[in-house]
This record gives sequence, structure tokens and C-alpha cells, in this order.
Amino acid sequence: MHVFYTPDISHSEYILNEEESRHCMKVLRLVIGDLVHLIDGRGGLYEAEIVGESKKNVTLRVLKTTAEYQKRNHSLHIAVAPTKNIDRLEWFLEKATEIGIDQITPLICDRSERRIVKEDRLNKVITSAVKQSLQAYHPVLNEAVSFASFIGGQSADYKMIAHCMDDEPRRFISQISSPGKSYLVLIGPEGDFTPGEIQLALQNDFKPLTLGNTRLRTETAALAACFEVNYLNR
Amino acid sequence: MHVFYTPDISHSEYILNEEESRHCMKVLRLVIGDLVHLIDGRGGLYEAEIVGESKKNVTLRVLKTTAEYQKRNHSLHIAVAPTKNIDRLEWFLEKATEIGIDQITPLICDRSERRIVKEDRLNKVITSAVKQSLQAYHPVLNEAVSFASFIGGQSADYKMIAHCMDDEPRRFISQISSPGKSYLVLIGPEGDFTPGEIQLALQNDFKPLTLGNTRLRTETAALAACFEVNYLNR
Repeated sequence: MHVFYTPDISHSEYILNEEESRHCMKVLRLVIGDLVHLIDGRGGLYEAEIVGESKKNVTLRVLKTTAEYQKRNHSLHIAVAPTKNIDRLEWFLEKATEIGIDQITPLICDRSERRIVKEDRLNKVITSAVKQSLQAYHPVLNEAVSFASFIGGQSADYKMIAHCMDDEPRRFISQISSPGKSYLVLIGPEGDFTPGEIQLALQNDFKPLTLGNTRLRTETAALAACFEVNYLNR
Repeated sequence: MHVFYTPDISHSEYILNEEESRHCMKVLRLVIGDLVHLIDGRGGLYEAEIVGESKKNVTLRVLKTTAEYQKRNHSLHIAVAPTKNIDRLEWFLEKATEIGIDQITPLICDRSERRIVKEDRLNKVITSAVKQSLQAYHPVLNEAVSFASFIGGQSADYKMIAHCMDDEPRRFISQISSPGKSYLVLIGPEGDFTPGEIQLALQNDFKPLTLGNTRLRTETAALAACFEVNYLNR
């Protein structure tokens, strides 16, 4: 069944905007009587029927509503240095949405080659993955922020920083944390966090983390953390 | 340190081919006396020094050899339906190489939209990831094969098929298998394996598998399996 993202849904009738309506009629070739899924991004999953088609707008009637669809009992926030090649960050956003993530913050670090991201474009990648994988909760993409201004005010049950400095003791997520909690994981740029950043994180109660003994790219490391938290919580 | 893939290394001196030599001198701008890593793809990791540069060839002298570098005590083979968009399969190959995989077989299934892959090109993606993530073992990419001809003759400690049919009982990899073994996981195309394929797999002692309760794309499912087997074995 085709899926539409309808964050502003509030009644049992919903009118798709012009772009979505065109997509619905011209590309998907759906007609009156066809059933579709709607997702509001806040846990609501709806089954709806097409009840009207005008030139510009498709009207839907909600037949069935499921609240808190596949609600998780944990919450995962990953703050990750944007990759130089933005495709790699987009790829991470798509995969993390499929697997399960609640919040992403692009983290501008000392060694970040990329210091600017287009949140609009990244959000579109997330929305597309939300629809494709039928996630009723839309992950929240925060604005990009510098490491220094991010690190202080964070509250989560488990705050962790993944880094590659072999001489420091580091543990796996599953050794540090238990299920059903909130997790915040920091993932650094290619070239890793600087010793100063790691120090600052430790001072702010972040626990040092390893994701295994292979060299991972930034986006792979971020996804490995996402896998591991979801694995811990299933 | 820069890394070169030298599968044909056999002596303490090694001459890079013309393409690699040009890359070494012109792009990386390495000069006599610089140190590099060599990987033979069969577990050998070498530290070598540039001892000669001619117009066409760079000569290296091996200073230090490590055999069975990061040898794993388990073995993972994933047979996966090639994605319609080949980028998605390439992406999986890169990420699986980073995380840890031994063998990949492109599996042509009843519902496969793509039935032909260019193994040469896919192998280049793997080699590039091998160098980037410093993997001394080069994963083996087998030739594409049809589901029916693949399914019979496979031996592995754990043979598993991931599918999405909700009415069949399925378990997680970690519930089915224990560490330190050989694992073979089958991942189907978008649209899943057919009931007939699943039946055939079960008849051949494959255990039905789930990778979690979210809808995963083919390449995400394959990577989730790769992650889980490595998680189980660390």
C-alpha cells in the first residue's frame, strides 16, 4: 500500500497538497476507492481511502487510526560530524531511519571538513525513508551545532563518545548501558575527534566508546552505533 | 599511512604496477623514504618503504610483515539479491567490508529485478574498502548464481534465510547461532523471497530469520545481518 506523509493531519478527512496529489494521480495512478497509508510522524498510522480527485487535489477519508505505532521504549540521539561527501551523511540518515533513530544532530568538530549542511535537503531524505520503511515516528533533525556549544547541556541516561584513540580504555555500548533508556552517541569526523574534544566530553560525563576493532568511516560508525542500540533494545 | 593492495606479493621487494605507481607519485606525492602499508588480501599486512621511483614504477622494500592480521575466528557468507539500483549493492559491499565479511554471492531470485551484475566493478568497490579500512583479508565475491542452483550444495554451521512472512515463526541470528562458527545468510530482493523459495531453503536446512520489526531495504537487511554476526563474535 502506498504511503503519504501527512504531518498536519487533524481530521478524518485529509486533502493532499498539489504536489502529492499529482504524484498520487499521475505517477502512482491511484483512483477513487484505492486504499493508502498515512503517517503523521508523531506515531500515528492511518489507513485511508481515496474519496475524491479534482484536478489539483486528492481527498482522503481515514478508515482506521493506529496511535503510537511501533512505539519504542528507548530513545536514541546520534550527534555526528557531517561527512565531506554529503551523500555519505544522507546515506546514514536513510539507513538509521529504517533501523530506528529519534534525533540526529550534525556536529561541527575541530577536524570537520564540512561545516555547513542543508537541513532541508537532509530532512527530505529522512521523510523519504520514513515513508519507505513505514515509520510512524519521524526522526528529528536538529540544526548543525559546534562541538563546543553542544557538549555542555545534554541530558540522556547514557552519554557516549566513540573515538579511535587506542591508548584510552573504551567499552562497547552494550557494556556501558542497559535497555529501555535514552542514549546519546557522538561520532567524530574522518580523522577523529581531537584530544581536546575527547577531554571536554569526558568532563561532561560522556563515556568513551568503541564500536569494534575495524577502522570505520564516519557514517559506518554512526550506523554501527544505531544498530547496537537497537539490538540492545529489541 | 597510505595503503596499497598487493595480492601478488611474494618477496621482500615489490614493484607497484604502472597505474598504482603513477597514483603513488603524482596523486599521493610520496617519495623515496616514505613508509606505506601493503595488504595481500590473504591476511598479510606489510610495512614497506619506498626505495626506488622510476618514470613508470615505484619499488618498495618490506620492513615488517604481520601474518593473519586481525584474523577472525568466525566466517560469514552473505548471499544477497542484487538491488535494482546497483549503487545500493555497492554500498552494502563497502560497508560489509568495513565491518567484516568473508564471502558474498549475488543471488538471482524469482523476484529479482536485476539479474546481471558486473563482478569486476563490484570487486573494485570491495578492494577500495579493504584499503580504506585496512582489512588484511579481501572478501571473496562469488559469481552471481540463481537461487535454485545455489541452495542445494551449501555447507555452513548455520544456514539462515531472512524473510518477511509474518505468519511464519522466525528468530534472530543470536537466538539461532553461537559464536566462533561459519554463517551463511540469505537476503532476498525487494518484494521478498517467494513462498516457494522459502520452502526450498527450509527443506535444505536453512533456518528462518528475522532482523527486527522494521521494514528494511535489501541492502539494509544484508548489513543488519553482517552487523549482527560480527556483534555475536566480538
